[in-house]
Amino acid sequence: MMKTDFKTIDFYKDQLIFIDQVKLPLVEEYISTDNYERIAEAIEKLEIRGAPAIGIAAAYALALSMKNVKDNFTPIFEKAYQRLHSTRPTAVNLFWALEQMRSAFLSSCSKPDNIYLVLLQRAKEIHLDDINKCKEIGRHGLSIFNKRSVVLTHCNAGQLATGGSGTALSVIKQAYEHGFVEYVFADETRPLFQGSRLTAFELEKANIPFAINTDSMSGFLMQQKKIDLVVTGADRIAVNGDTANKIGTYNLAVLCKYHNIPFYIAAPTSTIDKNCLSGKSIKIEFRDKNEVIQFNGTAITKNSYEVYSPAFDVTPAELISGIITEIGLFKPSFDFSNV
Amino acid sequence: MMKTDFKTIDFYKDQLIFIDQVKLPLVEEYISTDNYERIAEAIEKLEIRGAPAIGIAAAYALALSMKNVKDNFTPIFEKAYQRLHSTRPTAVNLFWALEQMRSAFLSSCSKPDNIYLVLLQRAKEIHLDDINKCKEIGRHGLSIFNKRSVVLTHCNAGQLATGGSGTALSVIKQAYEHGFVEYVFADETRPLFQGSRLTAFELEKANIPFAINTDSMSGFLMQQKKIDLVVTGADRIAVNGDTANKIGTYNLAVLCKYHNIPFYIAAPTSTIDKNCLSGKSIKIEFRDKNEVIQFNGTAITKNSYEVYSPAFDVTPAELISGIITEIGLFKPSFDFSNV
Repeated sequence: MMKTDFKTIDFYKDQLIFIDQVKLPLVEEYISTDNYERIAEAIEKLEIRGAPAIGIAAAYALALSMKNVKDNFTPIFEKAYQRLHSTRPTAVNLFWALEQMRSAFLSSCSKPDNIYLVLLQRAKEIHLDDINKCKEIGRHGLSIFNKRSVVLTHCNAGQLATGGSGTALSVIKQAYEHGFVEYVFADETRPLFQGSRLTAFELEKANIPFAINTDSMSGFLMQQKKIDLVVTGADRIAVNGDTANKIGTYNLAVLCKYHNIPFYIAAPTSTIDKNCLSGKSIKIEFRDKNEVIQFNGTAITKNSYEVYSPAFDVTPAELISGIITEIGLFKPSFDFSNV
Repeated sequence: MMKTDFKTIDFYKDQLIFIDQVKLPLVEEYISTDNYERIAEAIEKLEIRGAPAIGIAAAYALALSMKNVKDNFTPIFEKAYQRLHSTRPTAVNLFWALEQMRSAFLSSCSKPDNIYLVLLQRAKEIHLDDINKCKEIGRHGLSIFNKRSVVLTHCNAGQLATGGSGTALSVIKQAYEHGFVEYVFADETRPLFQGSRLTAFELEKANIPFAINTDSMSGFLMQQKKIDLVVTGADRIAVNGDTANKIGTYNLAVLCKYHNIPFYIAAPTSTIDKNCLSGKSIKIEFRDKNEVIQFNGTAITKNSYEVYSPAFDVTPAELISGIITEIGLFKPSFDFSNV
C-alpha cells in the first residue's frame, strides 16, 4: 500500500487547509484559511500548484468568497472570480473549475441564503471527481508498461498537483504496485525544483526507489539506455494533442524521439482546451527572473543580468506516444474535439 | 575592443594568482599562492576550472613544487605530479600539460640548480601558447557565421576556462566584433551555474547583449526559431570526433539535430585524446550529490535523497557540424589521428 500520510488540499470546518509546497520537502507545514484572497496568493506564489490542484483550490476559494456575504452577491462573486482568474494564465483546469462554479452560482442566485453551501457542495464534487479521475488515470496507465521499467518524469504531476493521487505519478505509483516500475528518475525541474523537492517527496512517501537528476542529464541517461519510458503531466492539451507542460518537457520529448523511447502524457480530460485547436494558440506564461538568478533569496548571479524564463513549453502531438486520461489511453493521431 | 579587465590566471613574483571562480560574478576575488597543494585544491573545488585553464594552472603548480627544493627532486616532483593528476578525471589538457612538464623535468634533471626556472619557463610557454591558440580559435570560428546570428552556448568556455580569451567564447567575442553576433543565450548550466555566473560575467565584460536561460529552456528557444547556432567548448575529443563536454551538451546537440540548427565545438587540438579512438573509452566523472541538492550550503531538498550526477556527457561525432581548433575548422567526418 502507498504511504500517503500527507494531504495536498483538504476542507474542514469551513476552512481550506493546504500544504505549503514552497517549503516542501524540508518542512511539512499546513496553511488554513477561509480568505479567497489568501488562496489566490497561494496559487500565485506556488504554495498551491499543479493544474488540477489549482482548479480545486480556486473552486473552494470561490465558495469561501460567499461564506459571510448577506447581499450584493453578484459583484462580490465576480470580483473573486476575476481575482482567481488572474492568478495563473496557462492552467486550463483553473478556468474550467471557475466556470463550473459560476454555473453553480448562477443556478443558485434565486436562493441567496444557500449560495455558500451550494458552491461548497460543487467544489467538493470537483475535488471528489478529481480523486476518482486520478485513480482512473493510474489504472489506464498500466497498459503503457510491457515490462519492469525505469521511468523518468519531469516536474511534479503527483498528489501534490491534484486533489487525488496525481496524474503522471498516479501512473507511476499504480504501476509500481503492480511490479511494472523498477526505478524512477526525477528531473529536478528548474527553476523551481518541483522534481527534486515535490516529486522526490512523493516517491519517498510511496517507498518507490528513485534518484534526482538535473534536467541537463536526461539525454545522458537515455544514451546510457537507463530509461525505458518518460511520463509527465500536462497543463493544457489542445484538440490536436499538442500539450503545454512545465518548461523542459519539450526537451524530453525531442530526446525521447531521438532515442526511440516512448513519451507519455497523463492528465484528466479537463486539461483539454476545446478553444485551442493546436498548440499555436496556447499562451505561454513568462515568470520573474528572480526564480532563475536567486535561490531562497540568495543571489546565484547578478541581479542586473537579463533572464529569459518561459514557465511552459508546448510539445507537438507528433512527439507524444500516448495521452493517458481518466477515460482511457489515447494514441496518435489525436482528435479531442468530441472528448 | 573587448573590456577584459580581469585575469583568470597570472604568474607574478613566483606566485600563481587566480580569480576565485566559485565566488564569481558576485565577488571578484584573487587568490595568490606558491603552494602546489593549494592549486590542486583549487582545481578540485572548481576555483580554477575549464580544461585549458586547469592544464596551465597544473603546469605552474608543478613548477612551484620545485621552487624551494634542494635535493631529492624526483620523488618530490612525482608526488606533486600524482597529486595534480588525481584532481579531475576528464580534462585531457590536464594530463597533456602534466606530461609536458614531466618531459621538461626529465630533460633538466642533470642541472638540478635550474629545475624550477626550466619548469617555470615551460609553464609560461604552455600559457602563452594557449593565449595564441584562443585567438586562432576565434579567428577560425568566424567562418561558421553566414549572417548576424543569435548564438546559444553552454557552461563556460571563455577566458575563465583558458589562459587566453576562451574557446567557444573566443569565437563568440571575435564574431561579435565583426558584427556576426547579435545576441547570446547562456544556458545557466546546472548544477554549478557556470553559464549564469561565469559566461554571463564574461559577456557583460565584453558588452555583448545576452540573456540567461535554464538548461530546460533550450528546446523552447529553438522551437521559437530564436537560435541560429550553438557553440560550446570541449573537455576531451576522441580521434573520431566524439566530444566530452559539460553535462547537458549532448541534450543541446540532439535538440540542434531535431531543429536543423548547426552545433559546433570549439577547442584547442590539445583537447584531442589520441588514446581515445571513440567516445566509448572516455571515462565520465560523477560528482557529489550536494552540488545538486544544495545551493551555497542551503538545502534545496532532503540530503537523504539519491542523486545521479555525471559531470560530463559525450556527444557523438555525427551530431557535430564542425570542430573549431587553432589550426582550422574541421568538418565531419572527423579523423584526428594525424592532428
